[in-house]
Amino acid sequence: MFITLTSPLDMHLHLRDGAMLQTVAPLSAETFAGAIVMPNLVPPIETEEALLSYKERILKASNSETFTPYMTLFFKPTYTKEFLESLKDELTAIKLYPAGITTNSEGGLSGFDVEELRPTLTAMSELNIPLCVHGETNGFVMDREAEFSSIYEMLASNFPKLKIIMEHITTKESVALLDKFENLYATITLHHLLITLDDVAGGMLQPHLFCKPIAKRPEDRAALLKVALEGHPKVMFGSDSAPHPQHAKEACGCAAGVFTAPIALQVLTELFMKHSSVQKLQAFVSDNAQKIYTNITVPKTTITLDERAFVVPDKYGEVVPMYAGETLKYSIVI
Amino acid sequence: MFITLTSPLDMHLHLRDGAMLQTVAPLSAETFAGAIVMPNLVPPIETEEALLSYKERILKASNSETFTPYMTLFFKPTYTKEFLESLKDELTAIKLYPAGITTNSEGGLSGFDVEELRPTLTAMSELNIPLCVHGETNGFVMDREAEFSSIYEMLASNFPKLKIIMEHITTKESVALLDKFENLYATITLHHLLITLDDVAGGMLQPHLFCKPIAKRPEDRAALLKVALEGHPKVMFGSDSAPHPQHAKEACGCAAGVFTAPIALQVLTELFMKHSSVQKLQAFVSDNAQKIYTNITVPKTTITLDERAFVVPDKYGEVVPMYAGETLKYSIVI
Repeated sequence: MFITLTSPLDMHLHLRDGAMLQTVAPLSAETFAGAIVMPNLVPPIETEEALLSYKERILKASNSETFTPYMTLFFKPTYTKEFLESLKDELTAIKLYPAGITTNSEGGLSGFDVEELRPTLTAMSELNIPLCVHGETNGFVMDREAEFSSIYEMLASNFPKLKIIMEHITTKESVALLDKFENLYATITLHHLLITLDDVAGGMLQPHLFCKPIAKRPEDRAALLKVALEGHPKVMFGSDSAPHPQHAKEACGCAAGVFTAPIALQVLTELFMKHSSVQKLQAFVSDNAQKIYTNITVPKTTITLDERAFVVPDKYGEVVPMYAGETLKYSIVI
Repeated sequence: MFITLTSPLDMHLHLRDGAMLQTVAPLSAETFAGAIVMPNLVPPIETEEALLSYKERILKASNSETFTPYMTLFFKPTYTKEFLESLKDELTAIKLYPAGITTNSEGGLSGFDVEELRPTLTAMSELNIPLCVHGETNGFVMDREAEFSSIYEMLASNFPKLKIIMEHITTKESVALLDKFENLYATITLHHLLITLDDVAGGMLQPHLFCKPIAKRPEDRAALLKVALEGHPKVMFGSDSAPHPQHAKEACGCAAGVFTAPIALQVLTELFMKHSSVQKLQAFVSDNAQKIYTNITVPKTTITLDERAFVVPDKYGEVVPMYAGETLKYSIVI
């Protein structure tokens, strides 16, 4: 049996810059029609110039005629409506980071004052620019996302016309919010559908599965899997694929991030097949996103997978992927 | 101000064997009067011959006229009363591991059938040999110890005269059990008084703080700290100091264990001073243990600490200690 997906999208992707960009951009471009590209470079993407030049570098590195990087800015409450309007054709979304919460987020928000945020968020809702949020407090690691619920609620109720994407959700609390507020949406990663804290720290410590937000409890994974497999219309695939060189992952004080871009569609196919839900895969990896992000143009591509063993490389360049060296059930048909 | 402790005891210690034993035994012997030595070697200590010869190697490696290793067997339900009685002078306790739950525990128990355990546990209570237990199920990593509560309750109620030591407890549930059953006691490590999962996986991943049981939630640490600082008579210090060579800790798939033996008394002094509880330190590091383990003879030693900076070495041999390279407030007076 062949599975053919139309225009798969990765709605949360880290491509980094420089040599790493050269390594990873072609790997996403090979299978995905487009991707929301995160702006947490050093320094973060905060100006038109930085955004356009990063887009140029991505297009060049991705070496694809179709792959479309959907560009984002690093949220600042000082962005004016005029500024955002002038960027409208090039800007797909704005990513909000609480300060210091993850890789290169030092310049993020250190408080959530509605009135301080109002001008920018109102402008975004008027311009149909979604707000992508890394939703974690600086509390205890297993509680950070659930504790952020009240901030999601505050944002959703104060800005009812703003599309708010809860990025890489990992908890049943976040899943529950989807049905509570019309304007809350979510991305879910591949790895959070598959692992719990047990896989990171239950046996030996596994740095290549260490990420932020950290994988949570079995009941959290079950809640995520349920909405993904049923093709819940407010849920989109976003890999949060985050490459770090091997030495930064295996060192003492390992960096957060799981690299999944080149294996995501193969593993998702296996997962959805296993749960007799493959008929919902198209919604999860593309259709839902196109209905939520009405401001994107999606290239028409197709990608076909068949049930044929795929041995995951030990490394892509200097980056160790999830399932390195293991055999997956599905392969991309080239 | 000087703090002088009499006959400090480490009631849960891993000394390993071979070259590692040569490195770590003198470090414990330098400050502790004695220690309960864990039997999870490869193969585990299960015979008189293995026990006596391991004791001999420890005494030789420790290079101390006073340091007393209190020897333990790896629990087997096949130990007879005759066997245990013949070993009584050399055997201090027996350590029970659920199968596969931690380092070198593959030969542990795979089920808890009271009747299967009855002959050995009855013999132990008659011979006044405490049972030390690694209390974790094979469930979700944050729940393993709390889930084990029912097994502690089963053991405590079926063998009311057996002294059962809940080793290296990490949860408020285990603390609560202390007051529920007269014959349940506990050891607490240094690191579980200080860290939570946040320190292991809340920022960057910290392999040198990865241990089993894993550090839990802030409210769990608070419960442990409370009974330690108040010198709760059923609670003893047991470092669970567990050396692994640096390469095994920092590799992908890092081994579990925190190495604290050479810094434990310095850090405990600082911690108890900070909480105005130094008057309870003697109980925690020695007196309680002597009242619980009525089958040990404790060498009379003293160790004095003063408020003078101690820079922790980056490594002892190939082993990276907790607080490597950091400056502690108290030093041992030599």
